[in-house]
Amino acid sequence: MSNNRISKSVIRRLPRYYRFLCELEENDVDRVSSGKLAEIMRTTASQVRQDLNCFGGFGHQGYGYPVTTLKNEIIKILGLNKNYKAILIGAGHIGTAIAAGMNFSKMGVEIVGIFDSNNKIFGNTINNIEIKDINTLESFCKENHTDVAFLCIPKEAAADTVKRLYNLGIKNFWNFTHYDIVGEYPDAIVENVHLSDIMMTLCYCMNEGKNE
Amino acid sequence: MSNNRISKSVIRRLPRYYRFLCELEENDVDRVSSGKLAEIMRTTASQVRQDLNCFGGFGHQGYGYPVTTLKNEIIKILGLNKNYKAILIGAGHIGTAIAAGMNFSKMGVEIVGIFDSNNKIFGNTINNIEIKDINTLESFCKENHTDVAFLCIPKEAAADTVKRLYNLGIKNFWNFTHYDIVGEYPDAIVENVHLSDIMMTLCYCMNEGKNE
Repeated sequence: MSNNRISKSVIRRLPRYYRFLCELEENDVDRVSSGKLAEIMRTTASQVRQDLNCFGGFGHQGYGYPVTTLKNEIIKILGLNKNYKAILIGAGHIGTAIAAGMNFSKMGVEIVGIFDSNNKIFGNTINNIEIKDINTLESFCKENHTDVAFLCIPKEAAADTVKRLYNLGIKNFWNFTHYDIVGEYPDAIVENVHLSDIMMTLCYCMNEGKNE
Repeated sequence: MSNNRISKSVIRRLPRYYRFLCELEENDVDRVSSGKLAEIMRTTASQVRQDLNCFGGFGHQGYGYPVTTLKNEIIKILGLNKNYKAILIGAGHIGTAIAAGMNFSKMGVEIVGIFDSNNKIFGNTINNIEIKDINTLESFCKENHTDVAFLCIPKEAAADTVKRLYNLGIKNFWNFTHYDIVGEYPDAIVENVHLSDIMMTLCYCMNEGKNE
């Protein structure tokens, strides 16, 4: 099975397949047709077959897809079975919401450290993880393997923080700031979440009275 | 100036243009070339000219774009000058982060009500806005004009809540849950933020060792 040249749009649909397959499994559904998956995904059966064929295809004509097998394959494809170690930088509103509210274990991700520059919150915990002084970042990362950093800091602090992380060998980022990491570090692997950009896009759509 | 048939990808770039133009304006830059904008946007000058031409074009060959004029035009195009009234449903981790941490006034949006079902937090405030009983949603919306709802509730509560909002005439949603609003209400205008899907996409990219 070759994962090369899988389009961005297919990859972005995989987490949704995964979520729906988890739901089907929880409801004790053994097999699902491409037609049913298409209905849940709001696409066509042909699109579903094409998407899943990118990864080798798991279905048999007329029998549908085996739910658990397909779910497990998608787990492997997405790498949700890897147990990545994450650190979160910035325990403000959004950082706290991420650390406290998300079920990372289901995604094979574990937050092993939380850092902030505000000494008033050092020692506080979020989900039993202590908030540490950002000045201890280097010593922490030298002692603890870290795969990915979640950036929940103000834009002003981003350039310096990303430089420090990059110098520590961390090249994977979940970026909630407006700092352009890939512009500075072309080999970084980054997913950006720019909430205000999304809000502004919604404003446009409301203004135009239509979905974009 | 006709805004019809502007592609989704152009619309999604406009908030970034807006942000960069705000920065240029703060730095007292009067005019900016398509080349410079392209550099900031990490695209080509030709792409920039093409994007801005969708809205009628504001530049003059050889003179670049007037920063403030262009910024103001984008404000109008995005509808950031509209003063939309928003209510936020679900004052949990993500809802609190959204209400407390984002600068909505810059986007022409005002949160006028926050609702939750947890009676332990009724009367608490976030950014001076009181958290109200979700049971008062109908009476509130009948008395207060509401353009858009931010949904920060568990998936289990989403179908019922969206139905209530839709019946109150609210058809614009910023949706942080995994409930498929458009699937149920095709005329709804929705921006989804599925954080776990984005995290899983990042897992895929880390697993593959590449940007998608």
